[in-house]
Amino acid sequence: MRAVIVTEPGGPEKLSIGAIDEPSPGPGEALVRLRAAGVNRADLLQRMGLYPPPPGVRADVLGLEFAGEIARLGEGVSDFRPGDRVMGIASGAAQAELLVAPLRMLLPIPRQLSFEEAAAIPEAFLTAHDALVTQAGLALGEAVLVHAVTSGVGTAALQLARAAGATVLGSSRSAEKLERARALGLETGVLVGADGRFAERVVAATRGRGADVVVDLVGASYLAETTRAMAEGGRLVAVGLLGGAKAELDLGRLLAKRLRLFGTTLRARPPEEKARVTQRFWREAWPLFDRGVLRPVVDRAFPLEEVRAAHERMARGEHFGKIVLTIG
Amino acid sequence: MRAVIVTEPGGPEKLSIGAIDEPSPGPGEALVRLRAAGVNRADLLQRMGLYPPPPGVRADVLGLEFAGEIARLGEGVSDFRPGDRVMGIASGAAQAELLVAPLRMLLPIPRQLSFEEAAAIPEAFLTAHDALVTQAGLALGEAVLVHAVTSGVGTAALQLARAAGATVLGSSRSAEKLERARALGLETGVLVGADGRFAERVVAATRGRGADVVVDLVGASYLAETTRAMAEGGRLVAVGLLGGAKAELDLGRLLAKRLRLFGTTLRARPPEEKARVTQRFWREAWPLFDRGVLRPVVDRAFPLEEVRAAHERMARGEHFGKIVLTIG
Repeated sequence: MRAVIVTEPGGPEKLSIGAIDEPSPGPGEALVRLRAAGVNRADLLQRMGLYPPPPGVRADVLGLEFAGEIARLGEGVSDFRPGDRVMGIASGAAQAELLVAPLRMLLPIPRQLSFEEAAAIPEAFLTAHDALVTQAGLALGEAVLVHAVTSGVGTAALQLARAAGATVLGSSRSAEKLERARALGLETGVLVGADGRFAERVVAATRGRGADVVVDLVGASYLAETTRAMAEGGRLVAVGLLGGAKAELDLGRLLAKRLRLFGTTLRARPPEEKARVTQRFWREAWPLFDRGVLRPVVDRAFPLEEVRAAHERMARGEHFGKIVLTIG
Repeated sequence: MRAVIVTEPGGPEKLSIGAIDEPSPGPGEALVRLRAAGVNRADLLQRMGLYPPPPGVRADVLGLEFAGEIARLGEGVSDFRPGDRVMGIASGAAQAELLVAPLRMLLPIPRQLSFEEAAAIPEAFLTAHDALVTQAGLALGEAVLVHAVTSGVGTAALQLARAAGATVLGSSRSAEKLERARALGLETGVLVGADGRFAERVVAATRGRGADVVVDLVGASYLAETTRAMAEGGRLVAVGLLGGAKAELDLGRLLAKRLRLFGTTLRARPPEEKARVTQRFWREAWPLFDRGVLRPVVDRAFPLEEVRAAHERMARGEHFGKIVLTIG
């Protein structure tokens, strides 16, 4: 079967469509015929050899999320049936024609959504839901600051925070993208200029209090300003490192404001943790797609064969929301 | 009445015993005749003008914890009676002959303990209990690393972690003090030498896993090694800054290991929070003093008049456990 292969670590030119063996489902697993797959920053890192997959997962096949139809079920009892439209996160190899997935990591595709739309959901929305709800314990009426709010995770966090009754502030380096984010419910756009300052703006927009929760996809380059922009008892969930990994932390401010910093990734977690994240998401957030409260934000769908162009678009930061690949 | 006064910011020579007005209890408060008071690092900082007290609290009178007898009750119903022996944390002015305290912030003194022993309990044990149990959610069988384990909070955290069924590792720069900490239940002493390294030792002593919880009184100078020494999903509660406030944080490690950093102080919290911390401590940890599982560690008791000598001893780091002042 065809899959997106990294021939050796390097730029987009190292990507190709190659042939790999078809997988076979074991007990408690399903073989899924894939119709679309999301593209993630982690794919770019993995392509460059900077993001080794978890143990037991091939490093040379890309893909962390998928949408498709169940082709065949392994042994065991399941509520899923062959032909069911499903989506989910994967530890790897989801940019291919077939994938074996644990049943506990499958989600039904909301009926009104296409495969391309569904493939834009899992990584972005599961990450944002886990960060905001499970980790930060977001409550009604809190102020949430989402860094890189126009990214895949950013647009998901924005919608989930709004759905939970929070006030949302979102940062971006693009005024035009912030304008587009208004349609998704963004109340306060925080344009970050060359000086990198934004704390004052956040504090003013929250009437002097600061942000109760931060969903941070930027990291190091924003860290000092972010801790300045946080309320007493504020929680920061570090999800991405677009702005680098190493920064000075002022522990004095951490103590005085009783801040909490949580580092998180989905990919590095053991399978049972990923299943738990999936099941909680299904229960709490999934119904909101049917009700129209949440919607996937697809920037653009590329055919699988154009995966290089997809990587180039993401690397240039031209996208708004999720880039996906169409398979088949 | 007499109290420890800071005439102007500076060294121990700026401390004196001066006269201040006697306070009067309002509704829901008690007037306590103080018999002993603990000395804290925060006193030294406040003496130097580096630790402003919360709003409404005098900056020129020291004292954050006390033990004494109830002299008089303000209006309202109470289970406490005049003459009851009580202890607690205070927002300030506890190194004096009388103190007004909210009833919800009073704890009975365990019957077998002297006033000096009782005065060694509140800050150390409430801070450690809040850090380990309320914030870090310490569980049976976890590995806890306590930095500066021979300090007041350190010796309290060590005992509480042991009582909760955790394995305890404690760091210190003194081999002799680590040896003394064994009597309190320390299993693995981690001697920190001139190179500041300790992560390897912690990882080896936890069979490759690292520390699940860190109670950190040191801060900046240990931060990089501390995050190296932590297990996946590990929680660090930053309580003190003996080793400075600013340090480089590796957010990459924070994400990859899904670490959680919590900054905390008791003093900066609103009164209702301090009452909640006190009440939870009473319920969960206080009974363990009667059962002999926990015991205050008094380094030395100085008469109130010798407060300068007490500060000097703490500044030189000669103490093991708590320094207290005897009043009256």
